[in-house]
Amino acid sequence: MVVLEEHLSFHTGSLQASRPTYAGFMRSVRVSLGDRSYSILVGPGLLSQLGDRCLALGLGARCGVITDETVAPLFAEQAVVALRGAGFSPVLIRVPSGETSKSLKVVGTCYDRLAAHRLERKSFIVALGGGVVGDLAGFVASTYLRGMAFVQVPTTLLAQVDSSVGGKVGVNLKAGKNLVGAFHQPKLVLCDLDSLNTLPPREFQSGLGEVIKYGIIYDAGLFRRLERDLPKILRRDPMALAATIARCCAIKAAVVSQDENESGLRAILNYGHTIGHALEAISGYGEYLHGEAISMGQVAASHLSARLVGLDSKSVERIRNLFVAAGLPVSVSLTRRQRERLVAAMRLDKKVSGGQIKFVLARRIGEVIWGQNVPETALQEALDLVCP
Amino acid sequence: MVVLEEHLSFHTGSLQASRPTYAGFMRSVRVSLGDRSYSILVGPGLLSQLGDRCLALGLGARCGVITDETVAPLFAEQAVVALRGAGFSPVLIRVPSGETSKSLKVVGTCYDRLAAHRLERKSFIVALGGGVVGDLAGFVASTYLRGMAFVQVPTTLLAQVDSSVGGKVGVNLKAGKNLVGAFHQPKLVLCDLDSLNTLPPREFQSGLGEVIKYGIIYDAGLFRRLERDLPKILRRDPMALAATIARCCAIKAAVVSQDENESGLRAILNYGHTIGHALEAISGYGEYLHGEAISMGQVAASHLSARLVGLDSKSVERIRNLFVAAGLPVSVSLTRRQRERLVAAMRLDKKVSGGQIKFVLARRIGEVIWGQNVPETALQEALDLVCP
Repeated sequence: MVVLEEHLSFHTGSLQASRPTYAGFMRSVRVSLGDRSYSILVGPGLLSQLGDRCLALGLGARCGVITDETVAPLFAEQAVVALRGAGFSPVLIRVPSGETSKSLKVVGTCYDRLAAHRLERKSFIVALGGGVVGDLAGFVASTYLRGMAFVQVPTTLLAQVDSSVGGKVGVNLKAGKNLVGAFHQPKLVLCDLDSLNTLPPREFQSGLGEVIKYGIIYDAGLFRRLERDLPKILRRDPMALAATIARCCAIKAAVVSQDENESGLRAILNYGHTIGHALEAISGYGEYLHGEAISMGQVAASHLSARLVGLDSKSVERIRNLFVAAGLPVSVSLTRRQRERLVAAMRLDKKVSGGQIKFVLARRIGEVIWGQNVPETALQEALDLVCP
Repeated sequence: MVVLEEHLSFHTGSLQASRPTYAGFMRSVRVSLGDRSYSILVGPGLLSQLGDRCLALGLGARCGVITDETVAPLFAEQAVVALRGAGFSPVLIRVPSGETSKSLKVVGTCYDRLAAHRLERKSFIVALGGGVVGDLAGFVASTYLRGMAFVQVPTTLLAQVDSSVGGKVGVNLKAGKNLVGAFHQPKLVLCDLDSLNTLPPREFQSGLGEVIKYGIIYDAGLFRRLERDLPKILRRDPMALAATIARCCAIKAAVVSQDENESGLRAILNYGHTIGHALEAISGYGEYLHGEAISMGQVAASHLSARLVGLDSKSVERIRNLFVAAGLPVSVSLTRRQRERLVAAMRLDKKVSGGQIKFVLARRIGEVIWGQNVPETALQEALDLVCP
């Protein structure tokens, strides 16, 4: 508790030096989905407001806070104190850190804890952690008592710009990643910038893999700003971070609002993911962080785009350079056997339709098309370029 | 509601006039839920039409047929042949018979089989069996690849009139029944009357527990017809069965259409279920069939109704007599310890809100109100009457 308070006062002090108030700092993005609409708030110090903001949403008294063993020592007490302070009765559920917690077994453990704490239909779940915790907790929320409210408190850059927004929740099977899940929108997403300060550099850079993606698929201006401001972002400058995260969330919100259940436009969010997910799958979800895998996937997709839909070679180079500048890998060494397994893994991807793998390809930076068939030879040549 | 009555009168009239063909025998009920609307077909010989009807719905080529070890030897081959004949590629997934298959473990087994058969987002699931299979297969369909289409082919009376209609799917936890699940509407419900011919008498009577419920909660005319026609129904007269099943489905469809996600009216379908589910829970989901448990639950609820909302004593007697005539239990012997466990189990019911158990009570036969608080003393006195 003492450590937490010191941690907070340090930030309060430093932030007050550069900005007059917290409130002026906070950015808000609205996801418009009719009666499932919700807000994404981005700013420092938001975790301490968790209880009051849940109260404002009219959520029931009991809740489950799902977090992992890495995040719990850092933020769980602050979350529980904030919830109790607003009159809620939280039960803290800690799961092991890492992708292996996105399993049916851990889902079952969470259910049992919620049942023991007597959660009711009006109760809610708080996902406190990175993408794994958000996906797991969201799936638990979407299915326990046939669905209850949940609040995302993403504590990693990757989760803040990607997985916490849009309502895709789920767990993995041995046969593949995210094969089980639901579309279940949160009631609120709180992106507390303070939580990024404890993030190891590799995790932070992994988040940038998704940040850069938004520039490629939707916003050439964002891509240019990233080329310019990347040093500031890598220093975790709060102003640059807040603007970047809010812009990424706004893009995702715009896409999701137009296509909640992934029947069309939403597919563009999977740029670089067909190859990226396959890389994660064949390496057993551990060797590469998600942002690293999709960094290589996006570079491969840019080669495919150049060959098939006219992306110019200068853009291919800019894309590659930005990932390199962000400290992300742009190539991977694979044996012939691994290459075969990679292509086989792509065929199990959820985006496969009629046996045909569908790709998102970029016409230019800021504009992509989806549902593209890719000839086997083109795929192999693009893989040659990233898997030397 | 008036339209519904006229619609059914028309059918009843034409059916009583002549029965020239199987086609003339079929009844159809539409569940109106916008883009999730679907038809329930009731008649003999429908299983052989499964493939063609799935084709008409434009479903993808691959599908999983989930069934159990009791139903598989009776109907699986016919289902698979019908699907193959229409060009589909089905994988048959057999699960053990009985409530224990409504578990996360069996769900996981189904997922693995679907992944091995390479089901895609446009693939679909066929639930071939009773309520357990429908709830399990529906939950699998609602979560595999974040949700795929499914078709219900209920083979028991209970499943035909109740669980196959309305989109409530789910599995059990140790802590309680149906604690995990989703709202996921089927694309089609095929109630083949032929499948009822193989149903053991006790299973058939269990289905009547739900049939009688529809009379109590919504349709005094149906209740009177049941009092009159019960002997015919118990002989499994196809004409009487078709009319009764279609009427029950129409009532459920009308209720579900008005309240898909159980925020209000839909609660009336739980008449007798708070006590019924608790009875099933404390007896380990095996001693009583669902229809038997809710028969006792409905009789207890009629006593509560008499005391709290003015149900007249003659109606209490008619309700009891109809369950007795259907061969269903109306009382249960419990030790004091079992009684305590029964009440404790009620408190874990999903309908509990703010710690208060909510009951559906009958003002008269054909009219109920929901969300009723019941004082502890009234509950104990009602239990005294059914647990002598």
